[in-house]
Amino acid sequence: MKIICSDLEGVFIPEIWVNVAQKTGIEALKLTTREISDYDVLMTKRLSLLDQHGLKLKDITDIIATIELPDGAWETLHWIRERYQIIILSDTFEEFARPLMKKLNYPALLCHSLIIDSNGRIADYKLRQANQKKHAIKALKGLNYTTIAFGDSYNDTAMLKEADHGFFFRPPDNVIREFPEFDVTNTYDELKTKLEALL
Amino acid sequence: MKIICSDLEGVFIPEIWVNVAQKTGIEALKLTTREISDYDVLMTKRLSLLDQHGLKLKDITDIIATIELPDGAWETLHWIRERYQIIILSDTFEEFARPLMKKLNYPALLCHSLIIDSNGRIADYKLRQANQKKHAIKALKGLNYTTIAFGDSYNDTAMLKEADHGFFFRPPDNVIREFPEFDVTNTYDELKTKLEALL
Repeated sequence: MKIICSDLEGVFIPEIWVNVAQKTGIEALKLTTREISDYDVLMTKRLSLLDQHGLKLKDITDIIATIELPDGAWETLHWIRERYQIIILSDTFEEFARPLMKKLNYPALLCHSLIIDSNGRIADYKLRQANQKKHAIKALKGLNYTTIAFGDSYNDTAMLKEADHGFFFRPPDNVIREFPEFDVTNTYDELKTKLEALL
Repeated sequence: MKIICSDLEGVFIPEIWVNVAQKTGIEALKLTTREISDYDVLMTKRLSLLDQHGLKLKDITDIIATIELPDGAWETLHWIRERYQIIILSDTFEEFARPLMKKLNYPALLCHSLIIDSNGRIADYKLRQANQKKHAIKALKGLNYTTIAFGDSYNDTAMLKEADHGFFFRPPDNVIREFPEFDVTNTYDELKTKLEALL
């Protein structure tokens, strides 16, 4: 039996922090791991910026709720769910993802979580597990599933490598160059064709 | 972080084989593991009965598609998915479950599969893994999830025991007597109250 694991941001939804930066006008929220390679430093800075601007969880989730899905995202995910089993593996936080999960009709999501204080302020974040995407693929293989995985960036490559079949969806050029071993799909139609060939 | 694992038949959908027996009028399809304790013997008999009556996969899935969800099942599962993550662990076969998964709005499902020949006949069945429910809970614990599990019968008890919090939903009286260590919920409201207390 086969199961699909997919990245979330850049695949079925836009990048959350980029959108929050745009909609709040806080330029520094646009920084990513490309500029600040240490994820903990980056996240601590992001949460500190939210604090400085007095933005609590609800302010951010209200903004996130206005993010629109890419054209075809809903239909493609629905097409997959009509036919196969899919679990979304994301390095986002469940509190941030929730409004977008609603828009995507509640697919199963394994990710991380935030620590919210009694005033609704985002006090901290908690990674459920380092390398969680790779570990989830390993766990599913242990359940006798043949695993198919796709994602768009660096934090997906360990998952793609661990999976029985791993490939990119809409990766940036530098990622393609650095990981030539993975096939590349760029449109939802290409993604569906690829899945049909593998499943 | 917490995740919910739920049984399917007897929880969010009626018993599939009982319904197929009623709708086809094939009395012997009503036999369960209560009457024939060896699952392999039981399943081989079921598939042989389908063959004798010339029933192929599509005939059976057409029947299954007419099975109605219990009152409140859809709403309860939706209520859970709005708030938490849930994966359904079932010992049914994905081909049989598909029409009912559509009715339940495509929750994630880990189960088994059938082997269909080129004429659409159900040639055999394939258990993905023995004790798959228990193994799935173990795997999720390995991904640093606190696990909450519920189900209605014998084939759920290993899962309930393995989970951090396991309890029954609408179990038969003999199951309650045999496993007094597990709490019992009987209505969807009780189920929701129990989940709210645990999550």
